[in-house]
Amino acid sequence: MLNDFVKAEIPEEEELRGRLKQERDRLSSVQMKIKDAKLPVMVIFEGFNAAGKGAIIGKVIRCIDPRFFKVATMDRQRSEEEKRYPFLYRYVKEIPEAGKFRFFDTCWMDEVVEQVLEEKLTEEEYQKRVHSINVMERQLCDNGYLVVKFFFHISKKEQKKRFDKLLSDKDTKWRVDDKDIWQNKHYDKCMEVFDKYLSDTNQSRTPWYIIDAKDKKYAEFQVLSFLNQAIDVALQNSSLNVPILQNTFKMEKTIKLSEISLEDKTMTDEEYEAELDRLQKELQELNNKVYRKKIPVVIAYEGWDAAGKGGNIKRIAAALDPRDYVVEPIASPEPHEKARHYLWRFWTRLPKTGHITIFDRTWYGRVMVERLEGFCSENDWQRAYNEINEFESELHDFGTVIIKFWVQIDKDTQLKRFTDRQNTPEKQWKITDEDWRNREKWDLYETAVNEMIEKTSTSFAPWYILESVDKKYARIKALKIVIREIKKALKQSE
Amino acid sequence: MLNDFVKAEIPEEEELRGRLKQERDRLSSVQMKIKDAKLPVMVIFEGFNAAGKGAIIGKVIRCIDPRFFKVATMDRQRSEEEKRYPFLYRYVKEIPEAGKFRFFDTCWMDEVVEQVLEEKLTEEEYQKRVHSINVMERQLCDNGYLVVKFFFHISKKEQKKRFDKLLSDKDTKWRVDDKDIWQNKHYDKCMEVFDKYLSDTNQSRTPWYIIDAKDKKYAEFQVLSFLNQAIDVALQNSSLNVPILQNTFKMEKTIKLSEISLEDKTMTDEEYEAELDRLQKELQELNNKVYRKKIPVVIAYEGWDAAGKGGNIKRIAAALDPRDYVVEPIASPEPHEKARHYLWRFWTRLPKTGHITIFDRTWYGRVMVERLEGFCSENDWQRAYNEINEFESELHDFGTVIIKFWVQIDKDTQLKRFTDRQNTPEKQWKITDEDWRNREKWDLYETAVNEMIEKTSTSFAPWYILESVDKKYARIKALKIVIREIKKALKQSE
Repeated sequence: MLNDFVKAEIPEEEELRGRLKQERDRLSSVQMKIKDAKLPVMVIFEGFNAAGKGAIIGKVIRCIDPRFFKVATMDRQRSEEEKRYPFLYRYVKEIPEAGKFRFFDTCWMDEVVEQVLEEKLTEEEYQKRVHSINVMERQLCDNGYLVVKFFFHISKKEQKKRFDKLLSDKDTKWRVDDKDIWQNKHYDKCMEVFDKYLSDTNQSRTPWYIIDAKDKKYAEFQVLSFLNQAIDVALQNSSLNVPILQNTFKMEKTIKLSEISLEDKTMTDEEYEAELDRLQKELQELNNKVYRKKIPVVIAYEGWDAAGKGGNIKRIAAALDPRDYVVEPIASPEPHEKARHYLWRFWTRLPKTGHITIFDRTWYGRVMVERLEGFCSENDWQRAYNEINEFESELHDFGTVIIKFWVQIDKDTQLKRFTDRQNTPEKQWKITDEDWRNREKWDLYETAVNEMIEKTSTSFAPWYILESVDKKYARIKALKIVIREIKKALKQSE
Repeated sequence: MLNDFVKAEIPEEEELRGRLKQERDRLSSVQMKIKDAKLPVMVIFEGFNAAGKGAIIGKVIRCIDPRFFKVATMDRQRSEEEKRYPFLYRYVKEIPEAGKFRFFDTCWMDEVVEQVLEEKLTEEEYQKRVHSINVMERQLCDNGYLVVKFFFHISKKEQKKRFDKLLSDKDTKWRVDDKDIWQNKHYDKCMEVFDKYLSDTNQSRTPWYIIDAKDKKYAEFQVLSFLNQAIDVALQNSSLNVPILQNTFKMEKTIKLSEISLEDKTMTDEEYEAELDRLQKELQELNNKVYRKKIPVVIAYEGWDAAGKGGNIKRIAAALDPRDYVVEPIASPEPHEKARHYLWRFWTRLPKTGHITIFDRTWYGRVMVERLEGFCSENDWQRAYNEINEFESELHDFGTVIIKFWVQIDKDTQLKRFTDRQNTPEKQWKITDEDWRNREKWDLYETAVNEMIEKTSTSFAPWYILESVDKKYARIKALKIVIREIKKALKQSE
């Protein structure tokens, strides 16, 4: 792409000024439409060093009301903290919310190509990164995002000229570092790596726009005109439906909820006490190892209302060092969460290496409550199985242990517990009208849960059923599974 | 993709029969919606030999009224005739029209992977093919097509079993050929090549669906359910707007129509006669060489009404052997042409090797009359510049000489010629009310033509201006350009 790229002929000064003004006005006037249409706009700036990305971002944002945009500046070097999260984490954290712009002063490209140039990534690892990026960009588009990508292109000569100019002044000297010099010296090599990346990530709905960045005014004009055009197109599309991809992840065998036998899954109080004590001690020790081995752990709980999730979580948490774990209770999303990709509030709650996050309800709300209550479109939830598998696959590839529990009871048990809650003053806060309403939809939920378990029991993140008519049984089973999975991960990390 | 693919668990006989019936009914009942929505549905079947593609197509079409589908069976070997056209030609010819299904019993994949396995394609050539296919699939989607792709997967053992069964019966023996045996013997190698192709062409809007084809009933169920799902999604999207891609082709410098000087472009009758005679003789000889060297030539004419296209074309054609060339006058599309991708009627009119096609008006109607009369959406014509460049690039890569003429006159000259036509009984048929209406839109057309010339003057297919106030001058210039370009191509082919 870069090799074929022909430098533009820059219009006459006066004409350019006129056209530039036009594009600026166009962007200004479209911002309210973006707000009304709730369109999130992610604008990515990548390119050669000293190509003027920052300066152009500075110009572009002048057309937009400060309430409607933010600039995300990505440090070239990942901080120590950021290294403790999956590759995409620090970028996903920054995605814009509906109706707003987010300008990225370099994004995931910069990190990947730099690592290739420093020979820190094998071809296989590079391909994995490219895959992760393509998946994320596709997911963003599928979920209504406009993603516009610019690559700022300057020649070796021009880059040298710019560095020389900066170096010649003691006030600007500091802005040129060794990596800049290295890039100019190895310009052709860089160009090759950049070009490969651009081709590898040039998808039809998130294409690259190459900006001839020699003339600053003209660069601004190009950026604005591509951006305005992309916004126009995106605004014309209301509620896009996209193909449902086939699940190509390796799957585990699953059973239907109706096939689970519950009555025989019980234990005596004595057994329970002894087991609980023993297992919690074991988990406590494992917690230490997980911390030292820097393994991140996700424990995800879903289940019927009153199935006993809370008590189960408590028994796990009791064994853990409070500094190393957190329980994330998931209710309906806050406005700022709802305004983003539905997985965003989970991406931002991920454990860092060595830590454990227990989710009390999860991203599976998408294919249960959001599906059944019509909070998302059919296309949205049908697509979500694969999107969730992709999400968990990213975590798994990073080394995260993922344990997913479905806490299962039967309808009668639920009724008994609901009634009990209602009749016990200190438990009344635990039961709401919504619980009763949900109960009426038991059969619909059961269908949804069966489909969820069938479609998201990947080999790397299968569902485990916790039979919880006898809560003691469920707690012991949960502890055993957590212990087993953590041990497995520790062994693999040896 | 194939390696990770886990064989499905086939439902119980009775359940499968029920679900199969459901999917069949669903397809049956959706066909009228497809017709009403004018959705063209292209369904591609690829996969291992003996995986049962043909049998399943046979089942699927039973659900559809014969008026609404056709099956395109692609011979594994290109015929001698087909070899004389660009790679995509024989497939594009078969694309469905709006509201109808077209089932491909193998498509472009089969040819490419076979050539890779036979080591007839270098990696670079393979990448070029993949690029052509991705571009075409993207163009089809962008222009409202639903493209559904199935890969039929069976194990080495299963394939062997099927071949053995066919071979054991003298009535079916003939159905197994050397290539089948070869494929089974080199199953792993094939799998690797197939897998690479599937990954390389697995685009978000034209994803692959891998069919576990061991059980025939279950294979049919999978095909139907993926197909029905894809149709549902496509029907929900009305008039999709897609991103306008940046032009990344090398471009020639161009000028605006208003900058063309016309008055000085004249010649005397004597000069003209002498030149015409000499040049036509030269072209005649070149025609022979082009034929022998098997070079295909496209000469495309656009220009103002009454600019003198017809007379100009005549002077070229007069020098050519009638067996080797054809003039294609392009009027508004017929219903069966309008029902397909707008480039289809040009794809199907392409010259074969050694032949010359002169287009009297062209695919550029998309960005002129269709743009100005609102026959297509803004998104459609804005996208068309790049689509046309991609189309011409395909022809160029195949070795086609592409010569594009814009026949230019000024507004006064047109008026004089219109009036002359009106006043001369034998010329009256050449002037219509539409011509007068178009004339009123001169300025709008001029803007569109300028944009067209600017955006489609690629290095491999630039526009040439024929100044035609003096028609003699324009004819001689056209002949000279045709001769020069053909000579260039002949030299390159040496």
